[in-house]
Amino acid sequence: MIACVFDGRQVRVERNHPEPESPPGEVRIAVRLAGVCGTDLEIARGYMGFCGVLGHEFVGTALEGKFAGRRVVGGINCVCGTCDMCRRRLPTHCRRRTVLGIDGRDGAFAERLVLPEANLVPLPAGVEDRAAVFAEPLAAAIQITRQVDLAPEQHIEILGDGRLGQLVARVFQAQGLSPRVIGKWPAKLNRIRRLGLETARAEDTHPDKTADVVVEATGTADGLATALWLVRPRGTIVLKSTVADTAGLNLAPLVIDEVTVVGSRCGPMDAAAAMLAGTDLALEPLITAEYPLAEADEALGAAADPEAIKVLLRP
Amino acid sequence: MIACVFDGRQVRVERNHPEPESPPGEVRIAVRLAGVCGTDLEIARGYMGFCGVLGHEFVGTALEGKFAGRRVVGGINCVCGTCDMCRRRLPTHCRRRTVLGIDGRDGAFAERLVLPEANLVPLPAGVEDRAAVFAEPLAAAIQITRQVDLAPEQHIEILGDGRLGQLVARVFQAQGLSPRVIGKWPAKLNRIRRLGLETARAEDTHPDKTADVVVEATGTADGLATALWLVRPRGTIVLKSTVADTAGLNLAPLVIDEVTVVGSRCGPMDAAAAMLAGTDLALEPLITAEYPLAEADEALGAAADPEAIKVLLRP
Repeated sequence: MIACVFDGRQVRVERNHPEPESPPGEVRIAVRLAGVCGTDLEIARGYMGFCGVLGHEFVGTALEGKFAGRRVVGGINCVCGTCDMCRRRLPTHCRRRTVLGIDGRDGAFAERLVLPEANLVPLPAGVEDRAAVFAEPLAAAIQITRQVDLAPEQHIEILGDGRLGQLVARVFQAQGLSPRVIGKWPAKLNRIRRLGLETARAEDTHPDKTADVVVEATGTADGLATALWLVRPRGTIVLKSTVADTAGLNLAPLVIDEVTVVGSRCGPMDAAAAMLAGTDLALEPLITAEYPLAEADEALGAAADPEAIKVLLRP
Repeated sequence: MIACVFDGRQVRVERNHPEPESPPGEVRIAVRLAGVCGTDLEIARGYMGFCGVLGHEFVGTALEGKFAGRRVVGGINCVCGTCDMCRRRLPTHCRRRTVLGIDGRDGAFAERLVLPEANLVPLPAGVEDRAAVFAEPLAAAIQITRQVDLAPEQHIEILGDGRLGQLVARVFQAQGLSPRVIGKWPAKLNRIRRLGLETARAEDTHPDKTADVVVEATGTADGLATALWLVRPRGTIVLKSTVADTAGLNLAPLVIDEVTVVGSRCGPMDAAAAMLAGTDLALEPLITAEYPLAEADEALGAAADPEAIKVLLRP
């Protein structure tokens, strides 16, 4: 089959990649559409130590098991079920997890992938593939609302107008919140304003320490520093960017202002599927381009363009 | 009067420092005993932009007002009462606050100081001056228990065997918790073991990510990095050290493990006074030395010795 592979040094499209096999409890899925995420770009730069088929955002058709023939999305964390984290019902933190296209498990930039059947969520009818492919990052946005108490009267800032910030804004709006999105790119901020939400250019914001909650979704190292001068004393920062380089970051305000920083990663796929079915999230304007899977290397290049939002791959 | 002053460049003891005057609502206090804190040492290195009389840990005798003649300790944040933070009942975060010996207000390394009467907490009889002088850092330790849910069955690590770590260990033990203290100095760790608590040498700890709660009280830049490899996924780090330099810190685990980091600063002085009256906290072994106020510059030098714990000044 066709698959887009990172070999530790470079990304290449393989036309004769071996078909995946499904061990007991797991099922094969024919990928219908896959999405490129910032994490894929990080992996393709060699930052994560992963080798194998890239990609973790997908919608597909189950080829076997109880969902055979149905369209599904799927949780990307594949868990042991027996470690202390699994026993605490924190399976996304399983000590022995593999993660689709990220850690120890081939991913979604392929004609077929394999996931545990328990990870699959069947899609309600009426959810288009081009919406369903957002399920995984949408779940990551929903996760914020599971970790932090949010309320309509709060002053909420979303830092970042990119792939994730766009989804966080939509999820918050769907829950009756009124976030403001701070970004760098006029075309991306336009897409936020068309939702009826406020926006600001990053360079026009001031260190006024008035926000109750700041969601840091910039994907850059300076996002946390900016969040620290936007959040009020005793306010909350939700950190979404996995930033390894903090050179120059001053964390003293975190202590002086008694700020809470909450790290946030993967979210509930069932809630994402339900939201896709029940809410018009205006996702179509977020799709910058759709490439054939065979041109996945070009698609990754297009996704790295800072003006791009979501780039899709179709097997 | 005698006062220990930082002029922006150096610390010096002045024998003819002007007597402080008390504006309406504030009272003069004769300092009986003062304590040297890590923050004082930071200020004396010029890191905080403060000029004036140093010191914020004290026990004194009120010279006027409703507590005249009584021994008192006092909250160090002097507030406006009208800003958004004061209205939210977060007075320690007052937007216009001055802070005793730290920000815009002369401090406690003097024969007399001035504080708002509302800041004063009269001391119960039976609390020795050499215990009462710990009230302010003790309140900072108690503050942790007001911000984070702690329970006896939790795996709690306290990083740092110094001034603050010692007090956090005592407060936690008084509340029925069983923290382990990780430190560098055998003599300091001995003082923890004499309480019946477990200790570990920093170099003997492993990145096993099993702690429910890690209190970072090292006062150093590498404390947060260590905390991040001790805390379990979805665990909590309480950050006490105001660290400005984070070079080399990798915050990716904060996101991947969905850790919560809670900044923590000043605490409730009334609770500290009550704890001093009701609990034997074994504070006497924490006093490394007591100096006359006139030798405050030497006392600061002694407090900077990494083997020192609490150095006191007596006017």
